[in-house]
Amino acid sequence: MIRVGLVGIGAQTKENILPSLLQIPDIQIVAACDMSLERAEEVKSYVRDVQVFKDVATMIDCMGPDALVLACPPQAHRDISLLAIERGIHVFVEKPPCFTLHELKDMIDAAARKRVVTAVGLNFRFARPIQHLRKIASSEKFGQPVHVQINHYAGKPRAPMWGLTSTLRSFLLAQTIHSIDLTTAFGKDHVTDVRSNVQHGSDAMLARIDISFSSGRSASILTGSMFPYFEFDMKVVSDKSNMITLDNLWNITLHDAEIASQVVGGDKRWRNAWQPGPLDSGYVRSGYFGELTGFFNAIRSGTRFEADFESMIPTFQVIEQVCATEIQPGIVAPPALRVMGEQQRSVARG
Amino acid sequence: MIRVGLVGIGAQTKENILPSLLQIPDIQIVAACDMSLERAEEVKSYVRDVQVFKDVATMIDCMGPDALVLACPPQAHRDISLLAIERGIHVFVEKPPCFTLHELKDMIDAAARKRVVTAVGLNFRFARPIQHLRKIASSEKFGQPVHVQINHYAGKPRAPMWGLTSTLRSFLLAQTIHSIDLTTAFGKDHVTDVRSNVQHGSDAMLARIDISFSSGRSASILTGSMFPYFEFDMKVVSDKSNMITLDNLWNITLHDAEIASQVVGGDKRWRNAWQPGPLDSGYVRSGYFGELTGFFNAIRSGTRFEADFESMIPTFQVIEQVCATEIQPGIVAPPALRVMGEQQRSVARG
Amino acid sequence: MIRVGLVGIGAQTKENILPSLLQIPDIQIVAACDMSLERAEEVKSYVRDVQVFKDVATMIDCMGPDALVLACPPQAHRDISLLAIERGIHVFVEKPPCFTLHELKDMIDAAARKRVVTAVGLNFRFARPIQHLRKIASSEKFGQPVHVQINHYAGKPRAPMWGLTSTLRSFLLAQTIHSIDLTTAFGKDHVTDVRSNVQHGSDAMLARIDISFSSGRSASILTGSMFPYFEFDMKVVSDKSNMITLDNLWNITLHDAEIASQVVGGDKRWRNAWQPGPLDSGYVRSGYFGELTGFFNAIRSGTRFEADFESMIPTFQVIEQVCATEIQPGIVAPPALRVMGEQQRSVARG
Amino acid sequence: MIRVGLVGIGAQTKENILPSLLQIPDIQIVAACDMSLERAEEVKSYVRDVQVFKDVATMIDCMGPDALVLACPPQAHRDISLLAIERGIHVFVEKPPCFTLHELKDMIDAAARKRVVTAVGLNFRFARPIQHLRKIASSEKFGQPVHVQINHYAGKPRAPMWGLTSTLRSFLLAQTIHSIDLTTAFGKDHVTDVRSNVQHGSDAMLARIDISFSSGRSASILTGSMFPYFEFDMKVVSDKSNMITLDNLWNITLHDAEIASQVVGGDKRWRNAWQPGPLDSGYVRSGYFGELTGFFNAIRSGTRFEADFESMIPTFQVIEQVCATEIQPGIVAPPALRVMGEQQRSVARG
Repeated sequence: MIRVGLVGIGAQTKENILPSLLQIPDIQIVAACDMSLERAEEVKSYVRDVQVFKDVATMIDCMGPDALVLACPPQAHRDISLLAIERGIHVFVEKPPCFTLHELKDMIDAAARKRVVTAVGLNFRFARPIQHLRKIASSEKFGQPVHVQINHYAGKPRAPMWGLTSTLRSFLLAQTIHSIDLTTAFGKDHVTDVRSNVQHGSDAMLARIDISFSSGRSASILTGSMFPYFEFDMKVVSDKSNMITLDNLWNITLHDAEIASQVVGGDKRWRNAWQPGPLDSGYVRSGYFGELTGFFNAIRSGTRFEADFESMIPTFQVIEQVCATEIQPGIVAPPALRVMGEQQRSVARG
Repeated sequence: MIRVGLVGIGAQTKENILPSLLQIPDIQIVAACDMSLERAEEVKSYVRDVQVFKDVATMIDCMGPDALVLACPPQAHRDISLLAIERGIHVFVEKPPCFTLHELKDMIDAAARKRVVTAVGLNFRFARPIQHLRKIASSEKFGQPVHVQINHYAGKPRAPMWGLTSTLRSFLLAQTIHSIDLTTAFGKDHVTDVRSNVQHGSDAMLARIDISFSSGRSASILTGSMFPYFEFDMKVVSDKSNMITLDNLWNITLHDAEIASQVVGGDKRWRNAWQPGPLDSGYVRSGYFGELTGFFNAIRSGTRFEADFESMIPTFQVIEQVCATEIQPGIVAPPALRVMGEQQRSVARG
Repeated sequence: MIRVGLVGIGAQTKENILPSLLQIPDIQIVAACDMSLERAEEVKSYVRDVQVFKDVATMIDCMGPDALVLACPPQAHRDISLLAIERGIHVFVEKPPCFTLHELKDMIDAAARKRVVTAVGLNFRFARPIQHLRKIASSEKFGQPVHVQINHYAGKPRAPMWGLTSTLRSFLLAQTIHSIDLTTAFGKDHVTDVRSNVQHGSDAMLARIDISFSSGRSASILTGSMFPYFEFDMKVVSDKSNMITLDNLWNITLHDAEIASQVVGGDKRWRNAWQPGPLDSGYVRSGYFGELTGFFNAIRSGTRFEADFESMIPTFQVIEQVCATEIQPGIVAPPALRVMGEQQRSVARG
Repeated sequence: MIRVGLVGIGAQTKENILPSLLQIPDIQIVAACDMSLERAEEVKSYVRDVQVFKDVATMIDCMGPDALVLACPPQAHRDISLLAIERGIHVFVEKPPCFTLHELKDMIDAAARKRVVTAVGLNFRFARPIQHLRKIASSEKFGQPVHVQINHYAGKPRAPMWGLTSTLRSFLLAQTIHSIDLTTAFGKDHVTDVRSNVQHGSDAMLARIDISFSSGRSASILTGSMFPYFEFDMKVVSDKSNMITLDNLWNITLHDAEIASQVVGGDKRWRNAWQPGPLDSGYVRSGYFGELTGFFNAIRSGTRFEADFESMIPTFQVIEQVCATEIQPGIVAPPALRVMGEQQRSVARG
C-alpha cells in the first residue's frame, strides 16, 4: 500500500487525477492539501479517513506520505518537488513541472541525489490511441519514422499565466508541452536544431515549430491560441512509405502501400482504420490512469519512470529555443521585423 | 452518506460500476458480495474498511445497506431485487433485470408496495453523446421525431446464456435491450405494434425489429451477432425534415435544411457536426456515471428514477413479441418457413 | 460507329447523358429530338453535323439511327421504346422506364420479339464505388450476403409527377427505384416477400421497405422525401460476419473479423477503408459512363445488357407491392389506420 | 466558335483534357498533334473531321487554330508556347509550363508582346471544393487568413524526369506546383521568404516548405514522394479564430467559434461540415472544366486569365528557392550536413 498525499485540489485534480487515483489498486490517499481548506475537504466525499492540510510541509511532517501527487501552478510544482525530494518522497507533478530548463535541471539533480522516483503528468503520451500509434510506429513493418507532424489547436491561454510576462512561454508550458514531448517519443535521438515562427494577432498567436533530431528525423508542430477550440491531430511518416495518422485521439488510419493486395486483389487506396469501441471511456483512454499507474509501478520496482523529470530535457530545450525568438506581441509583425525575430539555434548538449 | 452494498464482483463491476461509484460523492461502499470471496476481496484494493460476503442475505443482515448495486446474471438480479425490496432497500441492477415481462411486472409490483427506488443499468441512455442527441431531438426547432433507426452490431452471444434455451432471448437481453430502450426514449407514447424477422446462420443471427408507437412514430433496429465486433449507430428523423445521426457514440451530425444559408450564402449540403473533445474520458461519456448518480439522486429526493423497473415495460413488450416469432436455429431458414415464423402482433395494454 | 439519336434534351441529358456519350468512342450522335426545337439545337454546341427534330417518328425515318437514348417522362420512355423496338432500334431509357409492372412486361415482350438491346439508366449500379463494393461482396472471402441495408434520403418529390395521382408511386419511380434495384444486385435469387410501411407528414413521406429473397437473404430500405437533401448509404452483411459499408458513394469500409491480426498483432477494431483519389471525377465515378458503355457493348456483341428491361422485374414487383399498401396522404395516420394500411403480400411468380 | 489544336495525346489529354473540352460549348477541336500519329488518330473516335499531325508548326500552318491546348513535357510546353505566341495563337499548357523561373519570364514577355491569352493547367485551383473553400476564406465573417497548411502526399516521382538531373525539381514541378500555387491564392500579397528542408530516403524524399508573404500571413507545405499514394489536405486559419479544412478534395469542415450557439444553445465543439452530393462527378469537381472554360472565356472577352503564365511567378520563386537548398540525394543526410544544406533566402523582387 503506497501512501499518497494529494496537493492542489483544483479542477484538474477533481476531474482527472483523483478519479484516476481512486481506480488504482493498493494505494491510499492519506492526505489532501490546498491553500483553501474548503477545497481540500472536498476530497472527503470520495476518500474516507483522509486528513486535510493547508501547508505541504506540515502535511509531510504529520503524515509521512510515500509519494506526493501535485496539480498546482509550476512554481509550486518546482518548490514542493524540491522540498519533497529532499525528504526522500517520490513526486508526481502535473505539467508543467517548472518554468525553465534551468529549473528543470536543478530538480533532476536533486532527484538523482535522493534517488526518488519523479513523474510529470504528460497524459497524452499514455493515452490509449497514442499508445496504439507508438506501438505501430515502432514496428519493423512500419519502418523508421522520418517525420512527425502535430497540429495542436487551442483557443487559450491568450494572456500570460502564473506571474510570467510572456504569453508565448505560458502557452508553450500550458499547451504545446504535450506536443513537443510527443515528437521526442519516436526515437532515442536528441534534438539538434529548432526553428520557430510565431505570428501574433490582437491577442491570439499562431506558432510553428520545426525540430530536427540527431537521427535525421524531423518534426513540425502547428499550434497556437488562434483556434476556436482544442483539437489535436498527428501523423508519422516512415522511410518505408507508410503513414499513420491520429485524429482527435479517436481515429487511427494506417496508410500502407501493401494493404491493397490483401483486400480485393490490388485496388489502390485501401488503408487500415481503427477506432475505439463506442463505450470506450474511463481514464485509460485519456492517459491519466496510465501515467499514474506507471509512476506507482516505478516506485514499487525501484526503476525510473518513462516520463520522469529527466525525460523532459528535450522538451524544455525546444521551449527555450522557441522563447528565445519571441518578439513583442501586437498586431501581426511586419515581415522585416518578423524575419529578424526568427532564429536558428544549435542546441548545445553535454 | 448513502451506504451501498455491491453484489457480483465480475468484469462489469470492476471495469465500469466500481470505478463510477468511486467517483460519486457522499456514498460509501460498505460491503461487497460474491459467491467467490476471493473476487469480493478485490474490492479492498480500492475501498478501505469494506466487508466482504458470500451471501447477500447475510450481507444485508450484517451491514444494513441503504442500497444494493448488482451486476449478476438476470436470475440473481430478479431474486436479489425481490429480497432487497422486501426489506426496503433500494436496488440498482445491471441489465437485464430479469428474463421476462412477467417477472419484470412482479418486480415492479414489489417495488411499488415497498416504495423503494429501482434502477436498471441502461448506460446508453445516459451516455453523453446520446444525452446531446436527445436534447436536440426534443427541441422545437428540430421538430417531432417521426422515425428512429438503430444499427446495433455485435459478435456475440452466439449461444444461450444464463441457463436459457433460446439464443435469441439471450441476445436480446444481453445486447438489444439497450437499443430497444433507446427507441422508447423519444416520445411519451406506447408501443402499438412490433414486427420482427430473425435470420439464423450456422451460429450467428441477424434480427430486424420494427416498432410502431401510439403517436404514429416508428423505430427500426438492425441487430445481431453476425458482425465482426460491437458497433452502434443511430439516427432520428423529424417531421421538419431534419435528421440527426450518432456514429459509434462519438460523432453527431445534424442534417438541417436551414443551415446552408447561415454559412456561406445558400450552398446546399452544409450540416452541423459535433464530436467530443480529444481527451473526453471518464464515466460520464459512457453513461455509467450518469445512471448511478441518477439512482442515488432519486433516493435522496424520494422520486422515481428515469430508468427504473417500470420504465422497462415497453422494452420487455418488444422482447416478448420478438421471441414469440422465434424459429429453430439452423442454417438460413427456407422462405416458406421463415414467412410463417414472422408474425405481427398487437401489444395488449392495460 | 453506332449511330445514336438523342431524345429529350433536358437537364439530365445535358448534365449527365450527353457528357458521357461524348466520351464514348466510336459512336456518333446523329440526331437530337425534343418537343422544343430550341432545346434540341443546344446539342449543336457540342456535336457537329447533328440534325434536330421535334418528333421522334420523323427523326427515325429521316436518320435511321441504330440506337435511341431517351431522357423523358416515363410515358414517353414507354411509348417511344415501343415505337423504336418495333423498328428494330435498340433503346436506352433513363429511369423510370414506365409506370407499372404491367407496362414493363409489355415492353419486355416487344423487345424479345424484335431482339433489340434494351437498357434502363440505373447509374447507381454502375457507379465506381458500388462496383467496388459489389466485387468485394461477391468474393469467397467475404461470404454470402445475408442482408442489405440501404438508406436513401431525399427531399423530393413531395407531390405527384408525370400526371400520376400517387405521390408514393412518383417517389418510388423517381428515387427509390435505384435502391430497390441495388438490393436485387447481390444475388441471383427472386423476391419472395415485400413488406412496407409509409408514414405521411404534411407533404413529405417516409417509407420503409423490407424485401425477402428466395435464397433466404433480406434487404431493408429506409427512404422518403422527409430529409433535407439527397444522401445515400448502404451496407451488406455476410454469413462470415463481415460487413461492408458505403457512405455517400465515397467511403467504403470493410469490417472484417480477420483484419486485426494482419495489422499490429491482434488488436480489435481495425478495418479496411477505401476512398477515391482526391481528383476522382468524370462520369465513371457516377456510373453514367458505365451504363452507356455497357449498352453499346451489348449492341456490338449482340448480347443482353445487364440492366435491361427484364432485369427490372423484381424492382417493379417491389414497387407494386409497396403501392398496394398506400393509404391517403395527410397528417400522420392514426395507428389503427396505419396498421390496416400495412400488408404483407406474397409475390406470385411464373 | 473557337478553333482548337490539341497537342500531346497522352494519358492526361485522354483522361481529363479531351473529356473536358468535349463538354465546353462553342469550341471546335480542329486538329490533334502527337509525335505518334497513331496516338493522334485516337482523337477521331471522339471528334469528327479532326485533322491529325506529327508536327506542330505544320498543324498551325495548315489549320490556323485560334488556340492550342498542350499536355506535353515542360520543354515542349515552353518551346511550342513560344512558337504559337509568336504567331498570335492563345496557349493553354498543362503544368508545368517550363523548368525555371527564367524560362517562365521569357514566356511571359513573349505573351505580353503578342497580347495572347496564356493559361497553365492548375486544376486544383478550380476544383469545386477549393472554390468553396476560397469563397469562405475570403468572406468578412471568416476573417483574414493568417496561415495556410497543405499536406500533399505522393508516391512519385522518385527519379528525375524530362531530362532533368534533379529529382527534387522534377518532384516540385510535377506535384508540389499545385500546392505552392494554392498557398498564393489566399491573398494579393507577394512572397517575402522561403525556407525549406528536404529529407532524402533511399529513393523517396520528404520536403517541408515554409513561405512568408508580405501581408504577414504564412504557409507551410508538407510534401514528398515518401507516401503510399496521392492524397491531399489543406487548412486555412484566420485572425478571427476560424479554421476551414478540406480533406482529399471531398469534405470541408468549418471550425467556427460562433457556431455553437446557433445549434443547441451554446454547446461547444459544433462545427459546419460540407460534402458534395453522392453523385458529384464530371470535370467541374476536379477543376479541369473550370480551368479550360476560364481560358476560353478570357479569349472571348480579351482579358487576362486568372491562372496565366504571369500568375505563376510566385510559385516559381518558391520552387527556385527550394531547389537552391538542395543537397545530394542518398541516405538521410547527417545532421551537420543537413543544417548546412538548409538556407533562408530573401526573395528579391522588382
